[in-house]
Amino acid sequence: MVTKEQLKEKLKLYVILDRKLGNGVPLRQQAQLAIAGGATAIQLRDKEMKGRDYYQAALVIKDVCKENNVLFIVNDRLDVALAAEADGVHLGQEDLPLHAAKKLAPPGFIIGISAVNVEQAKLAEKGGADYLGVGDVFGTASKPDAKLTGVDMLKMICQSTSLPCVAIGGINVNNAKIVLDAGAIGIAVISAVVSQKDITGAAKALRELIP
Amino acid sequence: MVTKEQLKEKLKLYVILDRKLGNGVPLRQQAQLAIAGGATAIQLRDKEMKGRDYYQAALVIKDVCKENNVLFIVNDRLDVALAAEADGVHLGQEDLPLHAAKKLAPPGFIIGISAVNVEQAKLAEKGGADYLGVGDVFGTASKPDAKLTGVDMLKMICQSTSLPCVAIGGINVNNAKIVLDAGAIGIAVISAVVSQKDITGAAKALRELIP
Ligand code: NI
Repeated sequence: MVTKEQLKEKLKLYVILDRKLGNGVPLRQQAQLAIAGGATAIQLRDKEMKGRDYYQAALVIKDVCKENNVLFIVNDRLDVALAAEADGVHLGQEDLPLHAAKKLAPPGFIIGISAVNVEQAKLAEKGGADYLGVGDVFGTASKPDAKLTGVDMLKMICQSTSLPCVAIGGINVNNAKIVLDAGAIGIAVISAVVSQKDITGAAKALRELIP
Repeated sequence: MVTKEQLKEKLKLYVILDRKLGNGVPLRQQAQLAIAGGATAIQLRDKEMKGRDYYQAALVIKDVCKENNVLFIVNDRLDVALAAEADGVHLGQEDLPLHAAKKLAPPGFIIGISAVNVEQAKLAEKGGADYLGVGDVFGTASKPDAKLTGVDMLKMICQSTSLPCVAIGGINVNNAKIVLDAGAIGIAVISAVVSQKDITGAAKALRELIP
Protein backbone atom coordinates (compact mmCIF):
# COMPACT_ATOMS: atom_id res chain seq x y z
CA MET A 1 0.00 0.00 0.00
CA VAL A 2 1.16 3.54 -0.67
CA THR A 3 0.98 5.91 2.26
CA LYS A 4 -0.17 9.50 1.76
CA GLU A 5 3.40 10.73 2.07
CA GLN A 6 4.66 8.17 -0.43
CA LEU A 7 1.89 9.12 -2.84
CA LYS A 8 2.84 12.81 -2.63
CA GLU A 9 6.43 11.85 -3.36
CA LYS A 10 5.33 9.81 -6.38
CA LEU A 11 3.13 12.55 -7.78
CA LYS A 12 5.99 15.02 -8.15
CA LEU A 13 6.81 14.42 -11.81
CA TYR A 14 3.81 12.73 -13.43
CA VAL A 15 4.47 12.01 -17.12
CA ILE A 16 1.55 11.13 -19.38
CA LEU A 17 2.51 9.00 -22.38
CA ASP A 18 1.10 9.87 -25.77
CA ARG A 19 1.22 7.90 -28.99
CA LYS A 20 0.65 10.98 -31.13
CA LEU A 21 2.75 13.59 -29.32
CA GLY A 22 5.62 11.16 -28.82
CA ASN A 23 6.94 11.61 -32.36
CA GLY A 24 6.82 7.89 -33.05
CA VAL A 25 8.72 6.89 -29.93
CA PRO A 26 7.00 3.73 -28.67
CA LEU A 27 5.09 4.14 -25.40
CA ARG A 28 7.36 1.71 -23.57
CA GLN A 29 10.41 3.75 -24.58
CA GLN A 30 8.72 7.04 -23.67
CA ALA A 31 8.19 5.58 -20.20
CA GLN A 32 11.74 4.23 -19.85
CA LEU A 33 13.33 7.48 -21.02
CA ALA A 34 11.07 9.63 -18.80
CA ILE A 35 11.78 7.43 -15.78
CA ALA A 36 15.52 7.61 -16.49
CA GLY A 37 15.17 11.39 -16.16
CA GLY A 38 13.33 11.19 -12.86
CA ALA A 39 9.65 10.70 -13.67
CA THR A 40 7.98 9.52 -10.46
CA ALA A 41 4.64 8.50 -12.02
CA ILE A 42 3.56 7.41 -15.50
CA GLN A 43 0.04 7.58 -16.89
CA LEU A 44 -1.14 5.55 -19.87
CA ARG A 45 -3.82 7.48 -21.71
CA ASP A 46 -5.18 6.66 -25.16
CA LYS A 47 -8.72 7.43 -26.19
CA GLU A 48 -8.49 5.54 -29.47
CA MET A 49 -6.92 2.21 -28.56
CA LYS A 50 -9.31 -0.72 -28.37
CA GLY A 51 -9.65 -2.45 -25.01
CA ARG A 52 -7.32 -5.29 -25.89
CA ASP A 53 -4.49 -3.06 -27.12
CA TYR A 54 -4.94 -0.73 -24.16
CA TYR A 55 -4.72 -3.70 -21.80
CA GLN A 56 -1.60 -5.05 -23.49
CA ALA A 57 0.04 -1.61 -23.46
CA ALA A 58 -0.84 -1.36 -19.77
CA LEU A 59 0.92 -4.65 -19.01
CA VAL A 60 4.08 -3.45 -20.76
CA ILE A 61 4.16 -0.03 -19.09
CA LYS A 62 3.27 -1.55 -15.74
CA ASP A 63 6.42 -3.72 -15.89
CA VAL A 64 8.65 -0.76 -16.72
CA CYS A 65 7.18 1.21 -13.81
CA LYS A 66 7.33 -1.69 -11.37
CA GLU A 67 11.02 -2.29 -12.15
CA ASN A 68 11.73 1.31 -11.27
CA ASN A 69 9.34 1.73 -8.35
CA VAL A 70 7.40 4.32 -10.30
CA LEU A 71 3.67 4.81 -9.87
CA PHE A 72 1.61 3.48 -12.82
CA ILE A 73 -1.81 4.98 -13.52
CA VAL A 74 -4.24 4.08 -16.31
CA ASN A 75 -6.56 6.79 -17.64
CA ASP A 76 -10.35 6.30 -17.88
CA ARG A 77 -10.55 2.49 -18.24
CA LEU A 78 -10.88 1.19 -14.68
CA ASP A 79 -11.30 -2.37 -15.96
CA VAL A 80 -7.96 -2.18 -17.79
CA ALA A 81 -6.30 -0.62 -14.74
CA LEU A 82 -7.56 -3.39 -12.48
CA ALA A 83 -6.87 -6.23 -14.91
CA ALA A 84 -3.31 -4.99 -15.57
CA GLU A 85 -2.79 -4.49 -11.82
CA ALA A 86 -1.91 -0.81 -12.27
CA ASP A 87 -1.39 1.23 -9.10
CA GLY A 88 -4.45 3.26 -9.92
CA VAL A 89 -6.81 4.92 -12.37
CA HIS A 90 -7.28 8.56 -13.33
CA LEU A 91 -10.88 9.60 -14.00
CA GLY A 92 -11.93 12.75 -15.78
CA GLN A 93 -15.26 14.44 -15.16
CA GLU A 94 -16.66 12.58 -18.21
CA ASP A 95 -15.42 9.18 -17.09
CA LEU A 96 -16.93 6.62 -14.68
CA PRO A 97 -18.14 8.49 -11.57
CA LEU A 98 -15.92 8.26 -8.48
CA HIS A 99 -18.53 6.45 -6.38
CA ALA A 100 -18.95 3.82 -9.11
CA ALA A 101 -15.21 3.35 -9.33
CA LYS A 102 -14.89 3.06 -5.55
CA LYS A 103 -17.29 0.10 -5.67
CA LEU A 104 -14.84 -1.82 -7.85
CA ALA A 105 -11.48 -0.57 -6.58
CA PRO A 106 -9.75 -2.76 -3.97
CA PRO A 107 -8.22 -1.14 -0.86
CA GLY A 108 -5.05 0.77 -1.68
CA PHE A 109 -6.00 1.22 -5.33
CA ILE A 110 -5.31 4.86 -6.20
CA ILE A 111 -8.03 6.97 -7.79
CA GLY A 112 -7.12 10.37 -9.24
CA ILE A 113 -9.83 12.80 -10.30
CA SER A 114 -9.64 15.74 -12.67
CA ALA A 115 -10.92 18.99 -11.16
CA VAL A 116 -11.19 22.44 -12.68
CA ASN A 117 -13.03 24.15 -9.83
CA VAL A 118 -13.39 24.03 -6.06
CA GLU A 119 -16.73 22.24 -6.19
CA GLN A 120 -15.29 19.35 -8.20
CA ALA A 121 -12.31 19.24 -5.83
CA LYS A 122 -14.51 19.05 -2.73
CA LEU A 123 -16.77 16.39 -4.28
CA ALA A 124 -13.72 14.31 -5.17
CA GLU A 125 -12.30 14.61 -1.67
CA LYS A 126 -15.67 13.72 -0.11
CA GLY A 127 -15.94 10.75 -2.50
CA GLY A 128 -12.61 9.32 -1.43
CA ALA A 129 -10.29 10.31 -4.28
CA ASP A 130 -6.56 9.99 -3.57
CA TYR A 131 -5.28 12.93 -5.62
CA LEU A 132 -6.51 15.65 -7.95
CA GLY A 133 -5.34 16.48 -11.43
CA VAL A 134 -5.97 20.21 -11.65
CA GLY A 135 -6.21 22.12 -14.83
CA ASP A 136 -5.69 22.76 -17.98
CA VAL A 137 -3.69 25.47 -16.21
CA PHE A 138 -1.87 27.12 -19.14
CA GLY A 139 -3.56 25.55 -22.17
CA THR A 140 -2.18 22.52 -23.94
CA ALA A 141 -1.50 21.19 -27.38
CA SER A 142 -3.22 17.89 -26.59
CA LYS A 143 -6.52 19.60 -25.67
CA PRO A 144 -6.60 22.76 -27.76
CA ASP A 145 -10.28 23.45 -27.09
CA ALA A 146 -10.13 22.98 -23.31
CA LYS A 147 -11.16 25.93 -21.12
CA LEU A 148 -8.16 27.32 -19.19
CA THR A 149 -8.14 26.85 -15.43
CA GLY A 150 -5.42 29.37 -14.69
CA VAL A 151 -3.06 29.77 -11.74
CA ASP A 152 -5.51 31.62 -9.50
CA MET A 153 -8.08 28.83 -9.70
CA LEU A 154 -5.29 26.26 -9.21
CA LYS A 155 -4.35 28.06 -6.01
CA MET A 156 -7.95 28.19 -4.77
CA ILE A 157 -8.38 24.48 -5.47
CA CYS A 158 -5.14 23.53 -3.70
CA GLN A 159 -6.24 25.57 -0.68
CA SER A 160 -9.73 24.04 -0.67
CA THR A 161 -8.58 20.44 -0.20
CA SER A 162 -6.21 18.28 1.78
CA LEU A 163 -5.77 16.08 -1.30
CA PRO A 164 -2.46 16.32 -3.11
CA CYS A 165 -2.94 18.38 -6.27
CA VAL A 166 -1.02 17.74 -9.48
CA ALA A 167 -1.13 20.65 -11.91
CA ILE A 168 -1.62 19.84 -15.60
CA GLY A 169 -1.88 21.76 -18.82
CA GLY A 170 0.93 23.41 -20.75
CA ILE A 171 3.44 23.06 -17.93
CA ASN A 172 7.15 23.26 -18.81
CA VAL A 173 10.47 24.31 -17.28
CA ASN A 174 9.52 27.99 -17.57
CA ASN A 175 6.26 27.88 -15.65
CA ALA A 176 6.63 24.82 -13.40
CA LYS A 177 7.70 26.93 -10.42
CA ILE A 178 4.55 29.06 -10.68
CA VAL A 179 2.22 26.09 -10.24
CA LEU A 180 4.33 24.67 -7.38
CA ASP A 181 4.21 28.03 -5.65
CA ALA A 182 0.44 28.02 -6.15
CA GLY A 183 0.23 24.87 -4.04
CA ALA A 184 0.55 21.96 -6.46
CA ILE A 185 2.73 19.17 -4.98
CA GLY A 186 3.54 17.91 -8.45
CA ILE A 187 3.24 18.54 -12.18
CA ALA A 188 1.71 16.39 -14.89
CA VAL A 189 3.22 16.84 -18.33
CA ILE A 190 2.91 15.33 -21.78
CA SER A 191 4.68 17.24 -24.56
CA ALA A 192 7.15 18.92 -22.18
CA VAL A 193 8.70 15.46 -21.89
CA VAL A 194 7.50 12.93 -24.47
CA SER A 195 7.60 15.37 -27.40
CA GLN A 196 11.16 16.47 -26.68
CA LYS A 197 14.13 15.18 -28.65
CA ASP A 198 15.87 14.27 -25.39
CA ILE A 199 13.07 12.85 -23.25
CA THR A 200 15.38 11.92 -20.36
CA GLY A 201 17.02 15.37 -20.34
CA ALA A 202 13.63 17.09 -20.42
CA ALA A 203 12.35 15.00 -17.51
CA LYS A 204 15.53 15.67 -15.56
CA ALA A 205 15.27 19.43 -16.06
CA LEU A 206 11.69 19.39 -14.77
CA ARG A 207 12.42 17.06 -11.88
CA GLU A 208 15.13 19.42 -10.63
CA LEU A 209 12.55 22.20 -10.25
CA ILE A 210 10.39 20.17 -7.86
CA PRO A 211 11.45 20.26 -4.16
CA MET B 1 -27.22 -16.75 -10.43
CA VAL B 2 -28.48 -17.90 -13.83
CA THR B 3 -28.33 -21.60 -14.56
CA LYS B 4 -27.18 -22.82 -17.98
CA GLU B 5 -30.74 -23.65 -18.95
CA GLN B 6 -32.01 -20.25 -17.82
CA LEU B 7 -29.22 -18.56 -19.76
CA LYS B 8 -30.18 -20.42 -22.94
CA GLU B 9 -33.76 -19.30 -22.42
CA LYS B 10 -32.66 -15.69 -21.98
CA LEU B 11 -30.45 -15.71 -25.05
CA LYS B 12 -33.30 -16.52 -27.42
CA LEU B 13 -34.12 -12.99 -28.56
CA TYR B 14 -31.13 -10.77 -27.80
CA VAL B 15 -31.77 -7.17 -28.85
CA ILE B 16 -28.85 -4.76 -29.10
CA LEU B 17 -29.80 -1.12 -28.58
CA ASP B 18 -28.39 1.49 -30.92
CA ARG B 19 -28.50 5.27 -30.65
CA LYS B 20 -27.93 5.76 -34.37
CA LEU B 21 -30.02 2.96 -35.86
CA GLY B 22 -32.89 3.64 -33.47
CA ASN B 23 -34.21 6.57 -35.50
CA GLY B 24 -34.09 8.88 -32.52
CA VAL B 25 -35.99 6.56 -30.20
CA PRO B 26 -34.28 6.89 -26.81
CA LEU B 27 -32.38 3.81 -25.67
CA ARG B 28 -34.67 3.30 -22.68
CA GLN B 29 -37.71 3.29 -24.96
CA GLN B 30 -36.02 0.96 -27.46
CA ALA B 31 -35.48 -1.47 -24.57
CA GLN B 32 -39.04 -1.16 -23.22
CA LEU B 33 -40.63 -1.61 -26.64
CA ALA B 34 -38.39 -4.56 -27.53
CA ILE B 35 -39.08 -6.23 -24.19
CA ALA B 36 -42.83 -5.69 -24.69
CA GLY B 37 -42.47 -7.72 -27.88
CA GLY B 38 -40.65 -10.56 -26.18
CA ALA B 39 -36.95 -9.62 -26.12
CA THR B 40 -35.29 -11.92 -23.60
CA ALA B 41 -31.95 -10.09 -23.40
CA ILE B 42 -30.87 -6.50 -24.02
CA GLN B 43 -27.33 -5.33 -24.81
CA LEU B 44 -26.16 -1.76 -24.37
CA ARG B 45 -23.48 -1.02 -26.91
CA ASP B 46 -22.10 2.43 -27.78
CA LYS B 47 -18.55 2.99 -28.93
CA GLU B 48 -18.80 6.76 -28.77
CA MET B 49 -20.38 7.48 -25.39
CA LYS B 50 -18.00 8.68 -22.68
CA GLY B 51 -17.65 6.48 -19.61
CA ARG B 52 -19.97 8.56 -17.48
CA ASP B 53 -22.80 8.64 -20.03
CA TYR B 54 -22.35 4.94 -20.75
CA TYR B 55 -22.59 4.19 -17.03
CA GLN B 56 -25.70 6.32 -16.60
CA ALA B 57 -27.34 4.72 -19.65
CA ALA B 58 -26.47 1.31 -18.18
CA LEU B 59 -28.23 2.17 -14.92
CA VAL B 60 -31.38 3.18 -16.79
CA ILE B 61 -31.47 0.11 -19.07
CA LYS B 62 -30.59 -2.16 -16.17
CA ASP B 63 -33.73 -1.04 -14.32
CA VAL B 64 -35.97 -1.65 -17.33
CA CYS B 65 -34.50 -5.15 -17.74
CA LYS B 66 -34.67 -5.99 -14.05
CA GLU B 67 -38.35 -5.00 -13.87
CA ASN B 68 -39.07 -7.44 -16.68
CA ASN B 69 -36.71 -10.25 -15.69
CA VAL B 70 -34.74 -9.69 -18.91
CA LEU B 71 -30.99 -10.31 -19.13
CA PHE B 72 -28.93 -7.09 -19.29
CA ILE B 73 -25.50 -7.15 -20.95
CA VAL B 74 -23.06 -4.25 -21.42
CA ASN B 75 -20.74 -4.31 -24.44
CA ASP B 76 -16.95 -3.89 -24.09
CA ARG B 77 -16.76 -1.81 -20.89
CA LEU B 78 -16.45 -4.39 -18.09
CA ASP B 79 -16.03 -1.62 -15.53
CA VAL B 80 -19.36 -0.07 -16.53
CA ALA B 81 -21.02 -3.50 -16.52
CA LEU B 82 -19.76 -4.24 -13.00
CA ALA B 83 -20.45 -0.77 -11.61
CA ALA B 84 -24.01 -0.77 -13.01
CA GLU B 85 -24.54 -4.32 -11.76
CA ALA B 86 -25.43 -5.61 -15.22
CA ASP B 87 -25.94 -9.34 -15.58
CA GLY B 88 -22.88 -9.55 -17.76
CA VAL B 89 -20.52 -8.15 -20.36
CA HIS B 90 -20.04 -8.95 -24.04
CA LEU B 91 -16.43 -8.85 -25.26
CA GLY B 92 -15.37 -8.72 -28.89
CA GLN B 93 -12.03 -10.04 -30.08
CA GLU B 94 -10.64 -6.48 -29.81
CA ASP B 95 -11.86 -5.91 -26.28
CA LEU B 96 -10.39 -6.90 -22.92
CA PRO B 97 -9.18 -10.52 -23.15
CA LEU B 98 -11.39 -13.15 -21.52
CA HIS B 99 -8.78 -14.19 -18.94
CA ALA B 100 -8.36 -10.55 -17.87
CA ALA B 101 -12.11 -10.14 -17.54
CA LYS B 102 -12.44 -13.37 -15.54
CA LYS B 103 -10.03 -11.90 -12.98
CA LEU B 104 -12.48 -9.09 -12.27
CA ALA B 105 -15.84 -10.78 -12.80
CA PRO B 106 -17.59 -12.09 -9.67
CA PRO B 107 -19.11 -15.62 -9.70
CA GLY B 108 -22.29 -15.74 -11.76
CA PHE B 109 -21.34 -12.71 -13.82
CA ILE B 110 -22.01 -13.60 -17.47
CA ILE B 111 -19.29 -13.15 -20.08
CA GLY B 112 -20.18 -13.41 -23.76
CA ILE B 113 -17.47 -13.60 -26.40
CA SER B 114 -17.66 -12.85 -30.10
CA ALA B 115 -16.39 -15.68 -32.29
CA VAL B 116 -16.12 -15.92 -36.06
CA ASN B 117 -14.30 -19.25 -36.27
CA VAL B 118 -13.93 -22.54 -34.44
CA GLU B 119 -10.59 -21.59 -32.89
CA GLN B 120 -12.03 -18.49 -31.25
CA ALA B 121 -15.00 -20.54 -30.06
CA LYS B 122 -12.80 -23.19 -28.45
CA LEU B 123 -10.55 -20.61 -26.82
CA ALA B 124 -13.60 -18.87 -25.38
CA GLU B 125 -15.01 -22.12 -24.05
CA LYS B 126 -11.67 -23.09 -22.53
CA GLY B 127 -11.39 -19.62 -21.00
CA GLY B 128 -14.72 -19.90 -19.25
CA ALA B 129 -17.03 -17.83 -21.43
CA ASP B 130 -20.75 -18.28 -20.82
CA TYR B 131 -22.06 -17.82 -24.38
CA LEU B 132 -20.80 -17.01 -27.86
CA GLY B 133 -21.96 -14.29 -30.20
CA VAL B 134 -21.34 -15.80 -33.63
CA GLY B 135 -21.12 -13.81 -36.75
CA ASP B 136 -21.58 -11.34 -38.81
CA VAL B 137 -23.58 -14.16 -40.40
CA PHE B 138 -25.41 -12.31 -43.19
CA GLY B 139 -23.70 -8.91 -43.20
CA THR B 140 -25.06 -5.96 -41.29
CA ALA B 141 -25.72 -2.28 -41.69
CA SER B 142 -24.00 -1.47 -38.40
CA LYS B 143 -20.71 -3.11 -39.48
CA PRO B 144 -20.61 -2.69 -43.26
CA ASP B 145 -16.95 -3.63 -43.58
CA ALA B 146 -17.12 -6.77 -41.41
CA LYS B 147 -16.10 -10.04 -43.05
CA LEU B 148 -19.12 -12.37 -43.39
CA THR B 149 -19.15 -15.50 -41.23
CA GLY B 150 -21.87 -17.30 -43.16
CA VAL B 151 -24.24 -20.11 -42.14
CA ASP B 152 -21.79 -22.95 -42.75
CA MET B 153 -19.21 -21.50 -40.36
CA LEU B 154 -22.02 -20.76 -37.87
CA LYS B 155 -22.97 -24.43 -38.00
CA MET B 156 -19.36 -25.57 -37.54
CA ILE B 157 -18.93 -23.26 -34.57
CA CYS B 158 -22.17 -24.40 -32.91
CA GLN B 159 -21.08 -28.02 -33.34
CA SER B 160 -17.60 -27.33 -31.98
CA THR B 161 -18.75 -26.11 -28.56
CA SER B 162 -21.14 -26.85 -25.74
CA LEU B 163 -21.54 -23.10 -25.20
CA PRO B 164 -24.86 -21.60 -26.25
CA CYS B 165 -24.38 -19.73 -29.52
CA VAL B 166 -26.30 -16.60 -30.43
CA ALA B 167 -26.17 -15.76 -34.12
CA ILE B 168 -25.68 -12.13 -35.10
CA GLY B 169 -25.37 -10.13 -38.29
CA GLY B 170 -28.21 -9.15 -40.64
CA ILE B 171 -30.72 -11.52 -39.03
CA ASN B 172 -34.42 -10.82 -39.62
CA VAL B 173 -37.75 -12.67 -39.86
CA ASN B 174 -36.79 -14.09 -43.26
CA ASN B 175 -33.54 -15.77 -42.29
CA ALA B 176 -33.92 -16.36 -38.53
CA LYS B 177 -35.00 -19.98 -39.04
CA ILE B 178 -31.85 -20.73 -41.06
CA VAL B 179 -29.53 -19.76 -38.20
CA LEU B 180 -31.64 -21.62 -35.64
CA ASP B 181 -31.54 -24.72 -37.82
CA ALA B 182 -27.75 -24.28 -38.04
CA GLY B 183 -27.56 -24.70 -34.27
CA ALA B 184 -27.87 -21.22 -32.80
CA ILE B 185 -30.07 -21.24 -29.66
CA GLY B 186 -30.85 -17.56 -30.12
CA ILE B 187 -30.55 -14.55 -32.39
CA ALA B 188 -29.01 -11.15 -31.72
CA VAL B 189 -30.52 -8.30 -33.68
CA ILE B 190 -30.20 -4.54 -33.95
CA SER B 191 -31.96 -2.94 -36.93
CA ALA B 192 -34.44 -5.82 -37.33
CA VAL B 193 -35.99 -4.50 -34.12
CA VAL B 194 -34.78 -1.05 -33.06
CA SER B 195 -34.85 0.44 -36.56
CA GLN B 196 -38.44 -0.70 -37.21
CA LYS B 197 -41.41 1.63 -36.97
CA ASP B 198 -43.16 -0.85 -34.68
CA ILE B 199 -40.37 -2.09 -32.43
CA THR B 200 -42.69 -4.25 -30.29
CA GLY B 201 -44.32 -5.85 -33.34
CA ALA B 202 -40.92 -6.55 -34.91
CA ALA B 203 -39.65 -8.17 -31.71
CA LYS B 204 -42.83 -10.22 -31.43
CA ALA B 205 -42.56 -11.51 -34.99
CA LEU B 206 -38.98 -12.63 -34.35
CA ARG B 207 -39.73 -14.15 -30.96
CA GLU B 208 -42.44 -16.34 -32.49
CA LEU B 209 -39.85 -17.94 -34.77
CA ILE B 210 -37.69 -19.13 -31.87
CA PRO B 211 -38.75 -22.45 -30.28
NI1 NI C 1 2.31 -0.78 0.74
